[in-house]
Order: sequence, then structure tokens, then C-alpha cells
Amino acid sequence: MDMHELTRSLHVKNDSKIVMLVADGLGGLPLEPGGPTELEAAATPNLDALARRGVLGGSIPVKPGISPGSGPGHLGLFGYDPLQYQIGRGALEATGIGFELLDGDVAIRCNFCTIDTDGNISDRRAGRIATELSAPQAIRLREVSIPGIEIFVEPVKEHRFVVVFRGEGLGGNVNDTDPQATGVPPLQPVARDADSEKTAEVAAEFIRQAQQILADQPQANGLTMRGFAPKPDLPSYEEVYGLRAAAIAVYPMYKGLARLVGMDIVGEAKTLDEQMDVLESEWNNYDFFFIHFKYTDSTGEAGNFDAKVQRTEEFDACIPRVNALNPAVTIVTGDHSTPAKLSSHSWHPVPTLLASDVCRTDPCESFGERQALVGGLGQFEAKYLMQLALANAGRMGKYGA
Amino acid sequence: MDMHELTRSLHVKNDSKIVMLVADGLGGLPLEPGGPTELEAAATPNLDALARRGVLGGSIPVKPGISPGSGPGHLGLFGYDPLQYQIGRGALEATGIGFELLDGDVAIRCNFCTIDTDGNISDRRAGRIATELSAPQAIRLREVSIPGIEIFVEPVKEHRFVVVFRGEGLGGNVNDTDPQATGVPPLQPVARDADSEKTAEVAAEFIRQAQQILADQPQANGLTMRGFAPKPDLPSYEEVYGLRAAAIAVYPMYKGLARLVGMDIVGEAKTLDEQMDVLESEWNNYDFFFIHFKYTDSTGEAGNFDAKVQRTEEFDACIPRVNALNPAVTIVTGDHSTPAKLSSHSWHPVPTLLASDVCRTDPCESFGERQALVGGLGQFEAKYLMQLALANAGRMGKYGA
Repeated sequence: MDMHELTRSLHVKNDSKIVMLVADGLGGLPLEPGGPTELEAAATPNLDALARRGVLGGSIPVKPGISPGSGPGHLGLFGYDPLQYQIGRGALEATGIGFELLDGDVAIRCNFCTIDTDGNISDRRAGRIATELSAPQAIRLREVSIPGIEIFVEPVKEHRFVVVFRGEGLGGNVNDTDPQATGVPPLQPVARDADSEKTAEVAAEFIRQAQQILADQPQANGLTMRGFAPKPDLPSYEEVYGLRAAAIAVYPMYKGLARLVGMDIVGEAKTLDEQMDVLESEWNNYDFFFIHFKYTDSTGEAGNFDAKVQRTEEFDACIPRVNALNPAVTIVTGDHSTPAKLSSHSWHPVPTLLASDVCRTDPCESFGERQALVGGLGQFEAKYLMQLALANAGRMGKYGA
Repeated sequence: MDMHELTRSLHVKNDSKIVMLVADGLGGLPLEPGGPTELEAAATPNLDALARRGVLGGSIPVKPGISPGSGPGHLGLFGYDPLQYQIGRGALEATGIGFELLDGDVAIRCNFCTIDTDGNISDRRAGRIATELSAPQAIRLREVSIPGIEIFVEPVKEHRFVVVFRGEGLGGNVNDTDPQATGVPPLQPVARDADSEKTAEVAAEFIRQAQQILADQPQANGLTMRGFAPKPDLPSYEEVYGLRAAAIAVYPMYKGLARLVGMDIVGEAKTLDEQMDVLESEWNNYDFFFIHFKYTDSTGEAGNFDAKVQRTEEFDACIPRVNALNPAVTIVTGDHSTPAKLSSHSWHPVPTLLASDVCRTDPCESFGERQALVGGLGQFEAKYLMQLALANAGRMGKYGA
């Protein structure tokens, strides 16, 4: 059974508030066997106090041994099975730059490339052209005009940009045009099903006009298209959980992911303090708040153990402002681990804390990976966290009589 | 989603080595409440040191409460969901005696029985005839000849033997001919689908000729056929994990199970020391080594707690030779528990150890059932162990962006 069938049929409404704080890449590794992880090394008096009041556990983002990207990592936390719900590459790229996809849109990751006089690709990334040079060229491509189709072109970074087609009857099942090789021309866009024939034709016409526009360019005189993808079809928080949900995030990717599950994006916060300001001002308007903190991940990705410790302490400092609002349920977790030792996302379970007046409590005295091993939540797949949140908020009825 | 879809799409190759040591039936029970299990009672300094370096957990062979046979027990450890992949009885029996099944073969477990002058079964096991008497009769049955069909007859033990049919168009879906009763004649082989009609005809003709050959016998003058089964269709280690895998086992059953998932069977070891010799000599030829140790199971089956303790200590003594090879990942586990107290396979989680430079480590100071309860791997289904092995070996890419 799809877990959402269960939450749909069991959820009830009340006045409780749920706060989910996601410290991206929270889980870590000791630099040496027996040493502390980043979270264990950090001084986190507020999280430790919350750990004593609440229960700990280890969240497995997808399945044991699987290291997720941000998309599946967050879908899991949001309660959407990340193996069942998948966000196509183009849609994730559009989401990541804050583009709001609508039903029926097709999003495509594009690369500028360099094409020689024979029409062959000589550089698949246009010499990794600088963003200052590539962005104006992406914007020029907005001149492309195809009857009946609304076209959006958005610069991303260096050789990358996003194209979105909006119109009737556009399927998302089209092959990449990047031949993954140089010395050959780009491939033609080919539909993999009948519903995507029109998309392939639109893409071919886009490419034709774009090449004319770019013909005067020395480096970025061509393009390839990859990861054609429709807007993912995700049921909303309102529908599956009965929650009016708000996202308070700084970076476009996380706002975009939250929007895909029907959260409102509130505020314009640039710092964690400002995110707390938004939380306070929006407190009466929503049932559920997703608060995203990026820097535990970015410092982990950078392989900087000490910086991750420091960012963790900075994150800890926001907890009193959350506590002051007296949410029914406070959750602290991460979408995956990003150990500084690995400088990458990893598969290790993410230390997770849930505090409410009806959680069972456990022997945990502080918030950390080792403590989580004896925590009341055990090890669990992230996709079950929202059910636990609802239950602890008194928002889940009884299953069966 | 099938986990193999995930491992297929995410695995990457590198030069790392993974060693999986399987102490058959490793998990145990205290003889008295509060007492030590066999593993806890054993002096295992090498495993304890590995436990301090690595993470522990409890492997659930199939699902909670399910005691597996050797087939599903090993399939789980090999990462093949034992509820999804099943090895038919005939195929397991053939595998157990080291018979190498090919695609299209049909294997059948056969029993000698005694048939009276009315053609009814008077003893379903031919008086549990001694192997010395039954084996020559099984070999006589190799005289049976059926055009277009290659026939193999292999003695097993007492009244049991195996028949394999090899030829075109042989389905494996045929009813047993054992009526599970005496005073009635054997049943005719009946196909349960159209693809198995020919198999049923071949089986009927085999039985007809066999009865003639056996007519001079006082006890074993008839036979019944059970568990018709094709070679199981298991994807290979190379295909699903990208691993060149070798099995170093002493007993035919375990070599056979490994062969079914595409492992090479290497060496002719008869002792654990000789298995270590083979491991050393084959070290550069493979990525993954499955090493099987039988005696923790056989002593458990015999209900001999002390002997299981002693065999566990013998197993411990091989660890330094494994460590000396410096594998990226060392796993120590069992295919199931075989507590001496029960003299049988059991459902209890199997203490499992995984050591690598990127495992998180946990508070475990020794290798045993109680320590495993606070281990970093938690309790997990055996089928996920290979994903963890690949992740710890740096052989799994990221899922999603």
C-alpha cells in the first residue's frame, strides 16, 4: 500500500503546529575511528536539551547504502517515497533556479557547445564559458519564437542553461541531443513515445533558430539538450496530510522542492535569523513549517570538518526561537549525511530528533550519531517521518477499529 | 522498485576489494536467560578488534520471525530478495550436490520407494535404505534412454537421488508424483502448464524404464518425483553490482549457491586455512570474495554449545590473514542463526560486522549479539547488506541530483 493512501484516510485536523528543521547534510563521520562526528564535536546546548526532551533516531534517506541527491533526500523527508516519486533532471534544474513549473510544462537542461565549420561539436561545454559571457547568450535565445508555444530560457552557470516549453500536448519523453562525444554533430531530438512527438518537433525548431542566433559567437555557437522532463506529479501536503505548509528557505533549489509538494514559499530571508523572523511572523498562517539550513552541507562538501562544526553551532543557536513558539512537534534532521571526511553526500543514517509532549523519550542525553543509535526512533526510512510528525501532533486517527 | 534496478544504475567500478565471511548459522542463544550466546562465550580477539574498528548490526535473513534454509539465507546475503527469488526444491537439491545446472535444465528430487505386487506404495522411503545400497541403484538408472533428452542421475543419501533432464522445450511446472500416502500407487507426472507437457511425458517415460530396471530390487523397486524445478534465473554479480566475484567454499551446496549468482568457484580448499591460501592466491583476480565456514552451523544443529564456541574461535583465527590483505570492506555475518539451544536454524537476527575506512563506527567493543543491538547498522534485512558493502567500497554513485 502507498503510505499516502494511509495518511489521506487517517489524517485529522487540529490547531497544532509542526516545525521541521532540515540541516542539509547534517550527518557526519569521525575523522579517526572513535573520534567525534561534526555534530558530536559541536557545542549544541539547545539541541542537546531538545534531545533530552525528545526521541532520537537514524533516518535512512532512501535505502541502506544509497547516497541521495537533494531531490530524493528532501522527497523522503517530505514523506514521498523517493523511489516511487522521481524528479526528472530538467525539472530539477528548473526547480533549482527557482523557476515555477506548471502542469504540462517540459523542462530541459541545456549546454552551450562549440560547433566547428563542419557542424561537428568541438567542445561539449563551450570551453566552460564564464557565466558573465554565457548568461547574455541564454537571454538572447528568448528571441526564439514558435507558434502556440510559450518558451522560457533561463541562464544557470557557465555553459548551462534551462529551457522550458509551455503549451498543449507536450510529452516529456524525448532523447538527449548531446552525443556525449566530440567530432560529431549534435543528435536530433527524438520522441520516445507518441505523446512526445510534438515536443521533439518544438525542440528541433528551437535548436534551428537558436543556432542562427548564436552563429556570431566564437565559443557558445551551438547547444545540446538533455534530461527532458515534465513537472513531476506530486500530491500536495494539503491533500495527503491535511496541512497548510510553508517553506522558509534561502536557496532556490529548496524553495523549488517545497513548491513541488504544494508548500507556500514565505519570506525573503537571507540568514537563519531572518528565517526565524519569517517563522514568527507566519506562525498563525500555517500548520507546518519546513526550514532549510544549507551550510552544514556546503561545509561538508568542502571537506571542512571545523567549518561544519561551526555551522552546526550556528544552527543550534536558532532553537530557542523555535522553542519559544511552543510547536506541538519539533523535528531536527537532514536530507542526507555529508561527512567532511568524504566531501560528498553519503548513505549514512542521519541523526534525527523529534520532540513533542507525547513522544516516549529515551536515554539520549545529547544530539549526535552515537546517541541516535540507542534512540527511541531506531533506524527508519525517512519517508515515515511525516507520519510520525502527524501522530505526535495528534493529527492521525486510528487505523481500523 | 527492485533494489537491483538501483544497484545496476548506481554501481561504479574501482580497485577496491570486498571480503564477505559467512559463518553459517553464526547467531545463537544463551542456554540460560542472561547467559552468553555461543559467539559471546567464544574468545574472539580478532573479531572484537574488527568490531571496534567497524560497525555492528543485526541481519534479519528474510523477515522478522522467518527461519530460512540455506538457499534463502544465502540469497539474502548476496542481495537477492529471498521472497522474490526462489530456488525450486529440485534445483536446490542438484545445487547441493554440486551439479552444475544449465539454462533449460529441469531438476527433480527423487525418492526410492517400495511398491507391492498390486502396484501400491508400501514404503515411501524404501525403508530408508542405506546409501551404500541405494547409490548403486541410482547409478543403474543412468541406463534410461529417451531420444532428444540428456539424462543425469545422481545419488544423494539413503532413499534420495536427483534426476536432471536436459533438452529443448522442458518447462519446470510438473506436479509431484509422491501421493504422500501408502497403499496407493504413485501419481502420474502432470504438467501444470503447456510449456511443461513435454517434461511430464519425459518424466513418465523415465519412470516406466526405471521401474523395469529396479524390478529386481527387494526394497528400492520404485520411485517418486518431487519438486520439479528449472535452473533459477538469477542475475549475476557482474551485472547487478559490477563485481568480479569468487566463492571460496568447502561444501558443494555453498559453491552451488554462489555459482547461481555468477560467482567463480575458486580453489579446492578443505579447511579454513586452505580457504585463506586460496584467498591470498586469487586476491588480484577478483573484486569480491565470499568465504563460507560451515561448522558454526553444523555444531549448532547438533545442539552442541561448546563445540559451536570452539568452532567460532577457530573461525576467529582466520581474521588476521584477511586483515593482512587490507580489503576496503570486510563483512562478517551468517546466513541465519543456528542456536545450539534449538538445534535448528532460527529467525533471530544474525550478528553482523562491517569494517571499512568510511563506516561511521559505533560504541561496540566486541562482536556479539548484545553489542550488535547498539551497533551502527541497526537491524536490517540481509538483502541490503550488499548495497552497504558497495557504498563502503566507494562503488555506488549518487541517487538523483
